[in-house]
Amino acid sequence: MSNFPISGTTRVVVHLAYPSHHLRTPGLFNALCQERGLNAVLVPWQVPPQGLAEAVAGLRGIENLAGVIVTIPHKTAISALCDSLSSTARFLGVANVVRRDSAGRFHGEMFDGRGLVLGLRERGHDVAGRQALLVGAGGAAAGIAEALLGAGVASLTLSNRSAPRAEALAARLRAAFAGRAIRVGPGDATGADLVVNGTSLGMYPGDALPVDVETLDPGTLVAEAVMEPDVTPLLKAAAARGCQTHRGVHMITGQIGLLVDFLLGASGGQPPDAGAARA
Amino acid sequence: MSNFPISGTTRVVVHLAYPSHHLRTPGLFNALCQERGLNAVLVPWQVPPQGLAEAVAGLRGIENLAGVIVTIPHKTAISALCDSLSSTARFLGVANVVRRDSAGRFHGEMFDGRGLVLGLRERGHDVAGRQALLVGAGGAAAGIAEALLGAGVASLTLSNRSAPRAEALAARLRAAFAGRAIRVGPGDATGADLVVNGTSLGMYPGDALPVDVETLDPGTLVAEAVMEPDVTPLLKAAAARGCQTHRGVHMITGQIGLLVDFLLGASGGQPPDAGAARA
Repeated sequence: MSNFPISGTTRVVVHLAYPSHHLRTPGLFNALCQERGLNAVLVPWQVPPQGLAEAVAGLRGIENLAGVIVTIPHKTAISALCDSLSSTARFLGVANVVRRDSAGRFHGEMFDGRGLVLGLRERGHDVAGRQALLVGAGGAAAGIAEALLGAGVASLTLSNRSAPRAEALAARLRAAFAGRAIRVGPGDATGADLVVNGTSLGMYPGDALPVDVETLDPGTLVAEAVMEPDVTPLLKAAAARGCQTHRGVHMITGQIGLLVDFLLGASGGQPPDAGAARA
Repeated sequence: MSNFPISGTTRVVVHLAYPSHHLRTPGLFNALCQERGLNAVLVPWQVPPQGLAEAVAGLRGIENLAGVIVTIPHKTAISALCDSLSSTARFLGVANVVRRDSAGRFHGEMFDGRGLVLGLRERGHDVAGRQALLVGAGGAAAGIAEALLGAGVASLTLSNRSAPRAEALAARLRAAFAGRAIRVGPGDATGADLVVNGTSLGMYPGDALPVDVETLDPGTLVAEAVMEPDVTPLLKAAAARGCQTHRGVHMITGQIGLLVDFLLGASGGQPPDAGAARA
């Protein structure tokens, strides 16, 4: 193939994951690079947790390495290996992308929450002014909560099996977004016009539904962070009640442009700071 | 591009070099992988000499890394970082390719000499039975000498500005290829039907010619290891005398198949052992 793009001047990005076989980002990222005429490529980089620190140390001296994309199970560990973090990554204590500068310093950023919000926007759903119910209080939910508040939801209710964990996240969010309506409540969608599942419920057969679907109004938009299966039991149940639904894969498709800009942008890559917490 | 081949299951090979902008191997290697339907990709990996050891340490834990291709200035240093070496790489003290096994062990091999011989064969020139004059006694020349003897030249004369260095190489070659005609002589092609330049002479304007072209017979085949310029002053002078000529780039094109087999071969990749010294 004479137009195969990789040459000695190609910039490389590696995708740290364990395992890596399921990754969807390389295909999407490389297609966007081709579309934009960027001489860059993303390749999978499968490394177990105990090998992460040495793998990252080995990347610092690679001069044509633009950076690193990071997914399960490395998102928390990588944040501790960075030299600096964006306000969002620092607030969340996780990073899903790391840019390498010309001196080999690593700057971490976290786009998952913003990816979900941008994915919604790309499909015609603005979250500004919405009454949002977010299920979960773990790392994924924290990122989504931060992005929803950054994008201007009118109110955010956190629902979690462990209420103290939800209260702790709510307290941190209130400190970062002073004066906003941030509550903790049950998995009841009454009064919400946006419901987001930020737990892993729905990945495995037999999982409970993250929210009481009987409380879903047909006018409510139901969004997933779970990507496998592509259509979760929650989305099926919501569709059966007449709700609009939004698949988890759009958390990735919504952030591909952010990732390319951040890693390869001509400006040096600072992305639009749509949802960074001030904390 | 929906047929862009990189996914989460792609095996990766990195090309260690400094600098890397001039590399021709990624394009050739990736084209052959595509032709063979192999889900693998070679990317440049530009690292300065002082960063090599840490870069290599960081590669050991990458489970989808098939191996490493190595070029200037790392070929000698990498051999000391391998867990094992082929007989050729051990004899020469250099490696230009390293395979990673599933336990993260690195096995080094050296194909440059064999690449030159196979490149000649692909262009219709068998070296078996030839009277060969090889100019040079450094690392590149040593690899070519070992491959020429392995491929059955009738005699090999080494010519080098520093005769003691040529004598030292000749002594090592005689130990590895007992009973073969291995001599040291001047840069005079009289009686030779194959002349190979294994020095860097010809890379820079004003370089001396590596051999006295007045002694070239029109029936002599003249081959280069120098790749830039594509056609060296030696090749021009030889062509002007009516000799057949063979460009340095074929040292790479001749070994691409060996590299792909070694790194990605279904057999585990042991290549045909055409020219390994017994030392």
